[in-house]
Parts: sequence; structure tokens; C-alpha cells
Amino acid sequence: MRTAEMIASSPARTGVDPELLARTIDALVACAQTCTACADACLSEEMVAEMRACIRTDLDCADLCDTTARVLSRQTAYNADVTRALLQACIQVCRTCGDECASHADHHEHCRICAEACRACEQACSELLAAIG
Amino acid sequence: MRTAEMIASSPARTGVDPELLARTIDALVACAQTCTACADACLSEEMVAEMRACIRTDLDCADLCDTTARVLSRQTAYNADVTRALLQACIQVCRTCGDECASHADHHEHCRICAEACRACEQACSELLAAIG
Amino acid sequence: MRTAEMIASSPARTGVDPELLARTIDALVACAQTCTACADACLSEEMVAEMRACIRTDLDCADLCDTTARVLSRQTAYNADVTRALLQACIQVCRTCGDECASHADHHEHCRICAEACRACEQACSELLAAIG
Amino acid sequence: MRTAEMIASSPARTGVDPELLARTIDALVACAQTCTACADACLSEEMVAEMRACIRTDLDCADLCDTTARVLSRQTAYNADVTRALLQACIQVCRTCGDECASHADHHEHCRICAEACRACEQACSELLAAIG
Repeated sequence: MRTAEMIASSPARTGVDPELLARTIDALVACAQTCTACADACLSEEMVAEMRACIRTDLDCADLCDTTARVLSRQTAYNADVTRALLQACIQVCRTCGDECASHADHHEHCRICAEACRACEQACSELLAAIG
Repeated sequence: MRTAEMIASSPARTGVDPELLARTIDALVACAQTCTACADACLSEEMVAEMRACIRTDLDCADLCDTTARVLSRQTAYNADVTRALLQACIQVCRTCGDECASHADHHEHCRICAEACRACEQACSELLAAIG
Repeated sequence: MRTAEMIASSPARTGVDPELLARTIDALVACAQTCTACADACLSEEMVAEMRACIRTDLDCADLCDTTARVLSRQTAYNADVTRALLQACIQVCRTCGDECASHADHHEHCRICAEACRACEQACSELLAAIG
Repeated sequence: MRTAEMIASSPARTGVDPELLARTIDALVACAQTCTACADACLSEEMVAEMRACIRTDLDCADLCDTTARVLSRQTAYNADVTRALLQACIQVCRTCGDECASHADHHEHCRICAEACRACEQACSELLAAIG
């Protein structure tokens, strides 16, 4: 990932701490990949019928983290209201997905890793939201 | 679009009015396509330098409407908190994009159409949010 | 969907028949929504373990149709080579998903509808590919 | 990114070299972020009118790399034909975007970095395509 370099090389400025911004984008991108892979791994589990809620929330979390990473990667005509509302939604889905994956962490390594990625992403988004005010 | 038929043929139920749900998904999908096309049309305008904010908000709105349409298309293990937070973010970006496009509606037909799509989408999402409570 | 109006109102021109282009984008967008909903409906089926391949190909098809709809919605700096390669990939995934869903059409109405959407999308993409040459 | 761990922890197997698969997914994810950021940085450049083709191809490349990363992250019911067609399309868009960004590399640092990300992604996808056969 070359997120920090890309933020620094843009002529646009958002007023948001670039180091925190880059860290959040990286956490979102990692969480999206982990959730996509976790949904697929759950689908291949023998007990797939017990993994329905995990698959569904993984898919939601992947979609929303992807979109949030894209919106945060744009610095032109920055809009704090949109950013704030999106971060709040992303924090909600990361928390939901992290809780669901954590409940399967003892049985499935992919859920254990995914719960960690969701927690890290929720934390990064919360710090960015606090910084935006 | 066969959204209503797909909702009806799923074994899962969310408790949300299926007609309202289908109408909202259709509005989101239409808004996403319109915003993607509007961003591109703005990019080809002679006065592209004056369309920067419109292009950026079009891209954000397309991404968020796409994601919201996906999440609403899922009925398994429905989560009202995630749905609510996502609808709030989507309403925010549709309002922002609708306002921006409306300010160019007299000069660019694509912005006039896109403002209408954003208003319709904001309205549908607001109705769904009110129905979810 | 206001796809045709958006194509007509752009200052950019691709040389591709606008009516065929709009029809293909609409088929892609409908197929993406149908595949997202079919993946979710399959996930809620009692025999979810038998629907694994269908869920996986639905997810792939939704992602690729979404991306193809976006790329086709852009007319600025049109590139025939990219468009052609993307249409070929999209035709491949629509055929795969259509075949998989068709094999479940007798048991699941959502798979029957989804197979139709995949066939229609494959057909539209094939016509557009032939027209591009 | 915990891509390699996620591949290893899935019960599904594709027969594709997991280390190469993880490396390709990571290159795709990095390229998608870089292209999204480059499109935005180009949009904020004073000479935005000269960056139209770069913005458009950046947006295409971001969308297609995102989708390819998602499809490759799925191991359930692996389909070599879909993977191959998608990799071919992704290689085409990475080459196109890499060429376009390289032509601006002397003037814009974001285009220089983005050209490198596109080249690295094209290379990884080509290696994976060769390995799939």
C-alpha cells in the first residue's frame, strides 16, 4: 500500500491529519479483503448452515469498508458531513461483524483473524471520526 | 429490474415492507448509474475545472448508493442498526450530490437529471428509514 | 433507470450505438441486483450446503456486472481494448452463473429469475461486443 | 493485509499456488487504492483538462482491480475460466492505466506512483494467469 504517498502527492488538502487518514484507509482496505475471504471460507465450512449470519455480515462489511476506503481516498472538495455519516455507518458494521466473527473465533481461524481486522478497522474509523469532530 | 420478485422469492424475511424495500433498491441502483454517468459527463465538459466538486460528489454518491443497494438486497440475518446507519449516510450523500448537481442544472442536462435521481433516492431512503424506525 | 438520457446528455461520444449501450448497461445493473439477491436467498435456503457453488458464482457475477456497468457508463477517453476484454470476462461469468442458477431453477424461484437475468445480460454483452468488433 | 493467512485458513482449495494468489490479491488491492487516489489528485490539478483520459482510466482500473481482488479472494467452487477471463481484462486495464499514468509521471508524483502500482499489478496478474494455464 502506498496510501500515505498518494495523499501527500495530491494538490488537494482536507485538513485531516494525513497520517491518520492513511492508516484508516489501510485498515479499511485490509478489513474489506479479510471480510470477503471470511465470507467465502465460512461458505466452505461443513457447518455452513450455522455460518449464515457471519457470511451476511461479512459481505456487508466488505462492501461498506470498500466504499469508505474510496471516499476517504478522495481529497477534492472534501465534505465533513458525508465523511462523518459514512464513518458512523462503517463503525456500526465493523462492530457488528467483529462481534459475529468473534463468536466463531474458537472454531474458525478465519473468523478469529477477521474479528481482529474488524476491531482494528472500527478503532481506526473511530479515531478518524473523533479527529474530524 | 426484478427486485420485487427477488425479495418475494427469498426464504428470508426482514419485517420491512417489501414494496417499499424494492422501490428503495431500484432508486439506489438508478441513482448509482446516473451519478457514475454524470461524473463522466462532467469530466468531458469544456469547463471541467468548474465541475470538480460535482465529479467528486458524484463518485461518492455512486459508491455509497451501490453499497446501500447491495446491503438492502440481503434479507438473511437482517440487522436494523446497520441498515439505519447506512441509510443515514446514504441520505447525506444523496442530499449533498443533489444540491451540487442542482446548482449546475441550468447549464448541464446530465446534472439536471442526476439531481432528480439523487432527490428521488434521498426520498426513498428517508421513507425506508422512517418505516424501520 | 435514465441510462439513455444520461448517454445522450454527455458531451463525450464513443462511436458505440447509444441505444445498444444503454440497453446493455440496464441489463448489467439488473443482473447485478438479481445476483446479489440470489446469493442471499440461496444462503437462507434450508439446503444451503447444496447452494455453495451458486452463492459463489452469484457473488462473482454481481461484482463483475457492477464493474462492467460502471465502465460502460463512462464515455470520456473511450478505450475499445479495455471494453472488449471486460465484456468477454463479463460474458464468461454470466454464462457460468446462468448455467449454475438454471440447474436450481426447478427448486428455487430466485434461481429461475436469476438465470433469466444472467442470460439476458450475457446476450446484451455479446451484442455489444459484436458491435464494437 | 492478512491475505495469506486468510487463504490458508479456508477449508476450500483452488489448486492455485497460495503464495502467488496472496501476492496478486495484495497487488490488486494496492493498485485499486492508488488509482482511486490518482483519479482524485488529477481532478485537483490545475491542468485538469489535460488529465481527462488519466482520470477515466484510473476509475476503470480501480473498479476492475477491486472486482478482481474480490473474485480471487474466493476459493469455494473455483472456476478457472472465469478467473482467466477476468485476469485478462485486468491485465488490459492495468496496462492501459500504467501507460497513461507513465506519460504524466514527470509532472505529477501521484501519476508516477500510480504507474508503478499498475505495472506491479499487471505483472502479478500475468504471473497468476501463466500459473493457471
